[in-house]
Amino acid sequence: MLKPQVMEQLKKIVGAENFATGAQELICYGYDATQMEFLPDCVVHPADANEVSQILKLANVEKFPVFPRGAGSGFTGGALPKGGGVVLVTTRMNKILRIDTDNLVAEVEPGVVTEQFQIEVEKLGLFYPPDPASLKFSTLGGNVAECAGGPRAVKYGVTKDFVMGLEVVVPTGEIIRTGGETVKGVVGYDLTKLLCGSEGTLGIITKIIFKLLPYPAAKKTMLTVFDSIDGAAQAVSTIIKGKIIPTTLEFMDHATLTCVDRRFNLGLPAEGRAVLLIEVDGDPDLIEKQAGAIHDLIQPLGLVQFRVAKNAAESEELWRVRRLVSPSLRDVNPDKFNEDIVVPRSKVPDVIRKIEVIQQRYDIPIVNFGHAGDGNIHVNIMIDKSQAGQEEKAHQAIKEVFQAALDLGGTMSGEHGVGLAKQPYIPLELSAEQIGVMQGIKRALDPNNILNPGKMFPA
Amino acid sequence: MLKPQVMEQLKKIVGAENFATGAQELICYGYDATQMEFLPDCVVHPADANEVSQILKLANVEKFPVFPRGAGSGFTGGALPKGGGVVLVTTRMNKILRIDTDNLVAEVEPGVVTEQFQIEVEKLGLFYPPDPASLKFSTLGGNVAECAGGPRAVKYGVTKDFVMGLEVVVPTGEIIRTGGETVKGVVGYDLTKLLCGSEGTLGIITKIIFKLLPYPAAKKTMLTVFDSIDGAAQAVSTIIKGKIIPTTLEFMDHATLTCVDRRFNLGLPAEGRAVLLIEVDGDPDLIEKQAGAIHDLIQPLGLVQFRVAKNAAESEELWRVRRLVSPSLRDVNPDKFNEDIVVPRSKVPDVIRKIEVIQQRYDIPIVNFGHAGDGNIHVNIMIDKSQAGQEEKAHQAIKEVFQAALDLGGTMSGEHGVGLAKQPYIPLELSAEQIGVMQGIKRALDPNNILNPGKMFPA
Repeated sequence: MLKPQVMEQLKKIVGAENFATGAQELICYGYDATQMEFLPDCVVHPADANEVSQILKLANVEKFPVFPRGAGSGFTGGALPKGGGVVLVTTRMNKILRIDTDNLVAEVEPGVVTEQFQIEVEKLGLFYPPDPASLKFSTLGGNVAECAGGPRAVKYGVTKDFVMGLEVVVPTGEIIRTGGETVKGVVGYDLTKLLCGSEGTLGIITKIIFKLLPYPAAKKTMLTVFDSIDGAAQAVSTIIKGKIIPTTLEFMDHATLTCVDRRFNLGLPAEGRAVLLIEVDGDPDLIEKQAGAIHDLIQPLGLVQFRVAKNAAESEELWRVRRLVSPSLRDVNPDKFNEDIVVPRSKVPDVIRKIEVIQQRYDIPIVNFGHAGDGNIHVNIMIDKSQAGQEEKAHQAIKEVFQAALDLGGTMSGEHGVGLAKQPYIPLELSAEQIGVMQGIKRALDPNNILNPGKMFPA
Repeated sequence: MLKPQVMEQLKKIVGAENFATGAQELICYGYDATQMEFLPDCVVHPADANEVSQILKLANVEKFPVFPRGAGSGFTGGALPKGGGVVLVTTRMNKILRIDTDNLVAEVEPGVVTEQFQIEVEKLGLFYPPDPASLKFSTLGGNVAECAGGPRAVKYGVTKDFVMGLEVVVPTGEIIRTGGETVKGVVGYDLTKLLCGSEGTLGIITKIIFKLLPYPAAKKTMLTVFDSIDGAAQAVSTIIKGKIIPTTLEFMDHATLTCVDRRFNLGLPAEGRAVLLIEVDGDPDLIEKQAGAIHDLIQPLGLVQFRVAKNAAESEELWRVRRLVSPSLRDVNPDKFNEDIVVPRSKVPDVIRKIEVIQQRYDIPIVNFGHAGDGNIHVNIMIDKSQAGQEEKAHQAIKEVFQAALDLGGTMSGEHGVGLAKQPYIPLELSAEQIGVMQGIKRALDPNNILNPGKMFPA
């Protein structure tokens, strides 16, 4: 529990209207998209790096923990104030500072909502590709801290690939700049990428310099249905071996299709066992050619339907199948654990088969869909928590799913991060030596263990 | 000076035939592409990570410095054994372990020569874009340690952008894996990118996992001559604003053209003041269209010649202009300092103008060429060291060139690194706080300061 005089100092730093200790506020800033909740001692909404710096300097003197938070849309508890302390909300720092159309660079504050940023750059004919599912509410600072992904990562990469530089308040309170505005730059260690995906444990981001691209001239959406999982999974490798890198290659397994079709009656062919939603973008003539080539490449793989959207409205209609997945899942069971394993893309059929075995062993429905182009599969373990033993069984199944991904050369998280939820499983993926190096870096930057303590690594 | 019994232990680890103390060997492994030289105590050629680990563990017990080295082609002394110690050469670890055409991934040992790797992946229709000028002899391990760039970085990025994972022996001797084979992966800190460009100060790379791309179907080369530097520099921004990202946008200023033309008689138009060598790659129809669009975009900018290569032989002929630059420079003066500043690409005209002023102030010829597409300009300060005071003047001029790049939001090195050569200038670019964070990381990973000690940061 923070001392009253420390609370007073915090209130002075951010101003009374940006400081809260009321029960409502504490509850509002104590949850995220996991089902975990922890109450902080207080919530602060600093205006800039200077206030963040003062808060962290005070924290190092008074030894209280600080938990940075964007929109709180994380899936692993990375922003949750476990053990209590100060939640530091970045949403007041919400300005797009500049969009430089000459150098294809933008500078923003961390509290800008992802979609808002995309809308603004698109007005200028530019493109910020990362598209996490949360983009309508998640903040760019959170996206960077978690290294958010999304469907377009196949072609364009993840958030990290667009971060050129940062302004960061390090845990001891100093304000530093990392990286810069140039594509090349090799002076000193790459602190920028180290901060990306560090989940608020190594610094609080107060400004971000993003790389932008020209907005693609056109896009083409295809809904393809296969008579087997293997056919769909092979299609992914076949297309890429055919030298076409689509913007998205979204996969839905039979369980997913059943859920969606039962509820929304999309009229998918009865013999369909898996769907790939494929999108290509770029020059209009080129994508026309690519759509034809994709059809020819995947035709022999048990293709039972191939629909090409003729215009934006039809494209939206095809995307609807994918968008309806989440709302449909609750028909299977009321509670879900949404994991996001990744395997090398050619191993998608193997991991799906392994998950099938796990599903049968535990007798729990598991629904798989996701970003097959980069091997990133969302594994949804559907349970009813009100039934005794189901949650325990789910945790056992999750552990086996992680192990299956790791055995195939993958990772247990492609987008969601570690936070609190995956912390117990870290030793499955990282060796004691790897963890040792990472803990050494944490200690070097945060000697008093102020920033998001107890996260990422096993205590 | 290493104790004789320590030398004996090193000889035992790598085998007598892979251990050397003879004067010839010491001299051969004590220089690089700078004009600096330092003699090590001995040279070891380990076979694998296990031997590297044993060497570093011994180094931590006996407290001797270790200097990892690839081909020794570095421009800043990053591999030089200043102060003596052990040079650890990675060239025996020279196998391409696998090229995975399904997942567009390759795993290699660090001693593989860059061009050799490119040839092997191209045989399979794949593409490894980074193309440092040293590619015929530099090693991939060295490329990763320095984060090598090259002309194709405009479109494809630098070495770091293709490194997915590493096997690394950390300074204390533990062997760790970083990253992996998947595009997405957010478990733990990104040690992979931290190691890229760390210039052998944080670990010795013993395996590299690279991302590959499909080889572009076709390419088109254009030689464009402008009647002013400004025209050429504006052309760069204009093309990219026109939504075309060429593979290369190589720039040569008037001094460069004069050198090349005087020696090789290329028949460039007399009114030419700057050249852009432009290459686009991809779908044959698309690049045809892009070449036309580029012509139309740059026509109003003082274009005095526009030559498009019709075939590979003509393309080679156009590239000859660029390739002849280095051999021509010595006509200006016998000695050169080759710097590699970067500015945001729209600032190229400004930095060239500032360099012009510096040149006049110091009365030293300065020749500028390089990768204008990413704002990376090679600034060649041409002197005659035999003339008293020239070297001193050159160092003064270099410092002003760095400051000019920094004032325009750039960096003093895009590709060559810091090493020993740029160490004195680091405080121009990095703040004391930034340096403090980087030194903290170095200390955390290398508590006994074994690996490449005294490099990167001011002592």
